[in-house]
Amino acid sequence: MASLGEFGLIEIIKKQFSGTGKSKNIVAGFGDDCFCFKPGKSDICVTKDMLVEDVHFKKTLIGPFDLGCKAVEINVSDIASMGDAKPKYIFIGLGCPAGTSADFIKKLYSGMKKTCDKYGVIIAGGDTVKAGKLIISVTVIGECGKNIVKRSGAKNGDFIGVTNTFGDSAAGLALLTKFGAKHKFNKDQKFLISRHNIPKARLAEANKIAEYITSMTDASDGLYISVDLIAKASGKGANIYIERIPLSRQLKKIEPDFFKQTKSALYGGEDFELVFTVPASKARIVKQLVPAVSYIGIINNTKKVRYFYNGKEEKTKYSGFKHF
Amino acid sequence: MASLGEFGLIEIIKKQFSGTGKSKNIVAGFGDDCFCFKPGKSDICVTKDMLVEDVHFKKTLIGPFDLGCKAVEINVSDIASMGDAKPKYIFIGLGCPAGTSADFIKKLYSGMKKTCDKYGVIIAGGDTVKAGKLIISVTVIGECGKNIVKRSGAKNGDFIGVTNTFGDSAAGLALLTKFGAKHKFNKDQKFLISRHNIPKARLAEANKIAEYITSMTDASDGLYISVDLIAKASGKGANIYIERIPLSRQLKKIEPDFFKQTKSALYGGEDFELVFTVPASKARIVKQLVPAVSYIGIINNTKKVRYFYNGKEEKTKYSGFKHF
Repeated sequence: MASLGEFGLIEIIKKQFSGTGKSKNIVAGFGDDCFCFKPGKSDICVTKDMLVEDVHFKKTLIGPFDLGCKAVEINVSDIASMGDAKPKYIFIGLGCPAGTSADFIKKLYSGMKKTCDKYGVIIAGGDTVKAGKLIISVTVIGECGKNIVKRSGAKNGDFIGVTNTFGDSAAGLALLTKFGAKHKFNKDQKFLISRHNIPKARLAEANKIAEYITSMTDASDGLYISVDLIAKASGKGANIYIERIPLSRQLKKIEPDFFKQTKSALYGGEDFELVFTVPASKARIVKQLVPAVSYIGIINNTKKVRYFYNGKEEKTKYSGFKHF
Repeated sequence: MASLGEFGLIEIIKKQFSGTGKSKNIVAGFGDDCFCFKPGKSDICVTKDMLVEDVHFKKTLIGPFDLGCKAVEINVSDIASMGDAKPKYIFIGLGCPAGTSADFIKKLYSGMKKTCDKYGVIIAGGDTVKAGKLIISVTVIGECGKNIVKRSGAKNGDFIGVTNTFGDSAAGLALLTKFGAKHKFNKDQKFLISRHNIPKARLAEANKIAEYITSMTDASDGLYISVDLIAKASGKGANIYIERIPLSRQLKKIEPDFFKQTKSALYGGEDFELVFTVPASKARIVKQLVPAVSYIGIINNTKKVRYFYNGKEEKTKYSGFKHF
């Protein structure tokens, strides 16, 4: 790294990204102090997220390509959370430890590029700085359609829906932590690990259902916190029926203890599934549009979120992923 | 910090920022996964910068309030570099070591808030994560007017102008490093230190001269690199007349050695003065609009940047501030 230098690093990054960044809406780009673009008529949404080595990821458990994919996916997931929005431009800030190899950087950016291409996102700029640990700081700018969905729109009687299974990511991380990345995992284990290392933003799903739903967020810190965020922002309460929380076949197989499955689903972070509310009358069409949707509860006016298992209330306790 | 928790930290930040974030153009904000706003008819500019502890600053040499001011100023400086642009929204990502006190965070955000208020910038969001060292990752979104200035527009015969003196920041840092922040500095020394710790973005100056100039950048990595960036981006060369580089009275007094003054001016980073080119016919009006402007050289077609001192060419060597 010392010999690579910042300008050498920028050259590698430019090479990785050649071919992106071409759009008639771009007024000024790479090589200027700012990136300038012509906005459309629609509103603009912005999200910003930082991934820090040994806090959000360990280099021993995730390879640079997957890490690059994940850094983009989780930011696109925030755009998806707004329902009717599409990511357009991405800015990547990289804090780089002195010992980082050019090969690592190439693979990292290659993962980012592949994921950006998948979503039609243009890599618009960023900065590289020296840092003690690897830091990936991403800003995504998107364009909104007319059906922007906030966290605060949940209404009494709305169904609470989720876009897919919960708990896989935490189980995948547990497997990686227990056996190490070089272990020979079976197919089911690999599925859970890939759910952790390369989560998929539910952008297409969000765009499809945006016009019908009343609130939404993405579950980055666990289902429990996501439901809480929606309830609090909307000034509502909720009943959640634990037996309805969708669990993958793989999670059930690898973790036969139902209590542990549920714990992983409720408190495990980084599933990046969407959690949303929808009027009962629209629940069927949403399920038709996105068949993987499950309904796990109902919004009410109590201002309390309560959990039930087979009709009996379960006292749950906050223990989600706290960064501090 | 451990007891403060991420949500505690967010509460402190929210309190610091109460009163900001109110605008009829904001569609969704704090408490949603994205910040959404209605763009005007003008183009949008984006800049992103990271400050890392012990790379870009040392906590022993700059207090949290000044650091907060500086983090905002240097990003506004990038917006100013585009000439006819105004900063609108800021996103602050904070990587926070475990031992950071609530008082430190409050002062840091207080400095940011004061500087944002000065420029009419709305604090639109951000994220806080745990990190080994303090990291401040800032994204600013601005609105462009019709006279956007790139680095690449310099023309043969253009004058090369700068908005104020160079070398002060590097001299201020040298004083701090030599004597420590607690030393009793005299007035001249304090001036140089403040030029390092709280640089001022030349936004008003940039806005005034934008319609007359052909290229611009802000000198974050030294005057030498800034001239080089403009020349390269424009496919031009330049002659720089060293005796014309403006030096402050304070720098000359504290560093009587002219060679060292010049070195500080050319290679010292973080002056954040604007470096621009202007057709000879417009040089006078620009100087009238911003009296602190000095002209230090002329653009030519040689593709080489050459330095002269009293008519004699000086062979200079690149030794600017390299991050790696």
